[in-house]
Amino acid sequence: MLNLYMPKKTIAIIGAGIADDTTLKISEEVGRLIAKKGAVLICGGLGGVMEAASKGACIEGGIVVGILPQNHKKDANPFVDIPIVTGFGDGRNVIIVRSADVIIAIGGEYGTLSEIAFGLKMGKPVIGIGTWDIKGVIKAKNAEDAVDKAFKILSL
Amino acid sequence: MLNLYMPKKTIAIIGAGIADDTTLKISEEVGRLIAKKGAVLICGGLGGVMEAASKGACIEGGIVVGILPQNHKKDANPFVDIPIVTGFGDGRNVIIVRSADVIIAIGGEYGTLSEIAFGLKMGKPVIGIGTWDIKGVIKAKNAEDAVDKAFKILSL
Amino acid sequence: MLNLYMPKKTIAIIGAGIADDTTLKISEEVGRLIAKKGAVLICGGLGGVMEAASKGACIEGGIVVGILPQNHKKDANPFVDIPIVTGFGDGRNVIIVRSADVIIAIGGEYGTLSEIAFGLKMGKPVIGIGTWDIKGVIKAKNAEDAVDKAFKILSL
Amino acid sequence: MLNLYMPKKTIAIIGAGIADDTTLKISEEVGRLIAKKGAVLICGGLGGVMEAASKGACIEGGIVVGILPQNHKKDANPFVDIPIVTGFGDGRNVIIVRSADVIIAIGGEYGTLSEIAFGLKMGKPVIGIGTWDIKGVIKAKNAEDAVDKAFKILSL
Repeated sequence: MLNLYMPKKTIAIIGAGIADDTTLKISEEVGRLIAKKGAVLICGGLGGVMEAASKGACIEGGIVVGILPQNHKKDANPFVDIPIVTGFGDGRNVIIVRSADVIIAIGGEYGTLSEIAFGLKMGKPVIGIGTWDIKGVIKAKNAEDAVDKAFKILSL
Repeated sequence: MLNLYMPKKTIAIIGAGIADDTTLKISEEVGRLIAKKGAVLICGGLGGVMEAASKGACIEGGIVVGILPQNHKKDANPFVDIPIVTGFGDGRNVIIVRSADVIIAIGGEYGTLSEIAFGLKMGKPVIGIGTWDIKGVIKAKNAEDAVDKAFKILSL
Repeated sequence: MLNLYMPKKTIAIIGAGIADDTTLKISEEVGRLIAKKGAVLICGGLGGVMEAASKGACIEGGIVVGILPQNHKKDANPFVDIPIVTGFGDGRNVIIVRSADVIIAIGGEYGTLSEIAFGLKMGKPVIGIGTWDIKGVIKAKNAEDAVDKAFKILSL
Repeated sequence: MLNLYMPKKTIAIIGAGIADDTTLKISEEVGRLIAKKGAVLICGGLGGVMEAASKGACIEGGIVVGILPQNHKKDANPFVDIPIVTGFGDGRNVIIVRSADVIIAIGGEYGTLSEIAFGLKMGKPVIGIGTWDIKGVIKAKNAEDAVDKAFKILSL
């Protein structure tokens, strides 16, 4: 039977391409929990937080979408199932955020800040773990807390 | 075990948002065959050729990615599993083409022509069924012929 | 006194980054005539047809806007006054076309074809000199004929 | 004589589409001073801070470029000389920032925050008047101070 008008639930993980071990461990755990609970993981498809989260989701058998700034799918990290190859550089940040039902920010530099800003501008829920302190971001204590909060919002 | 560095094979179907019954039937058949043979279907996520192809892939249990010009995932046709919500209008045509390993054009108006042009510019294989007669397009006789040609290229 | 609600008239010249001498000469002449008659020249900001047209407009004292695919204004040809730096690769083709009141295509490869397609899709007048033979393109015999046709449309 | 390889200096003003009178007054003064000192003003082309800055530059006889999110040049405020019509929605924020040599943020909501973030990510000077308190933003006391700081950077 066809499953009409039921696109999959999507959660974006945003964070820096280079990160410390603690941040990477949290990212992998967030990715794992998202896949376990059945949402599609969307991310920027590159290294650091993106790769760790992708790895977590991949281990758990989830679907990982990587929305790449570059021109070639080979630029994706090895855990991305579906590379969306934009060639739009930083412009792809808008697409990551717009394609997500909920956004989880982990750590992060200026690129992550741009995504938090777009998420809040679009009225999307943005959950943060150790990230920029911007009004509107829902703070989470750890990976489990962030994913719990995300799925609570998705089920509303 | 992790399936490293093996992003799924992707085939884009491009064509108009409004099409006659013959074109829609071909589109659905192309979508069905792509899913049956195990590639991810990428399309523009809207109606006409895009929806018919999505339906074919959906019936066969395949994954359908719809790269939307608009701002909301609800704009996707009901057979899209993973809506990529760009908000970039016609700019999303570039992303459809760039994300595909092979492109199949079915019928089509000016939007499809822009995608054929981008595909050829990027050096991607573009297979056509009853579409614009542009040098470089590989002509196919019907749905089966087009998908056979596409998978022959993918397996090279 | 303020000149309210009178954005300047814009004509886009589209064509390949490498072109033969005849094509370049026509491009420079088209650029010169556009500037002489007072419209802003929009182009892709790079070499070949784009640079020749920019040079023509620059010699005549016109304004040249170059909408670049890359990330840095230094990538513009030396005759561009106002570089718009998109970083969007081929996605910038959409912006060139959308920002123009009239489009003139001179020669051209697949990139030009994508722009012709977008122009016609958006319902914009597309004038062609020795370019792709696509239904809807208004054929011009030479530089003067093309610019005459463009300004006739602008004054409607 | 041709003025080779000298694209005009560009300053982007970023800020919200709705703003209080004090913010609008500062914006108009910043726009006026930018034009007076000879740089091209780049902005998002819409209302509020963008329109006030455009008005200031227009009164002073400067060139105003408006990089619009929408599909039609008529969406520009009446003081824009050269509308760049992207149709890319929020994606156009990237282009505003990337096209500017220096960025001045005045007040601002989440959209402005995204532009500040992109500016800092790209390593561009971002000067702020009463805007988001983000590390890396150069604070200015008022319109004159901001424009002085901007031109000091431009002349380096």
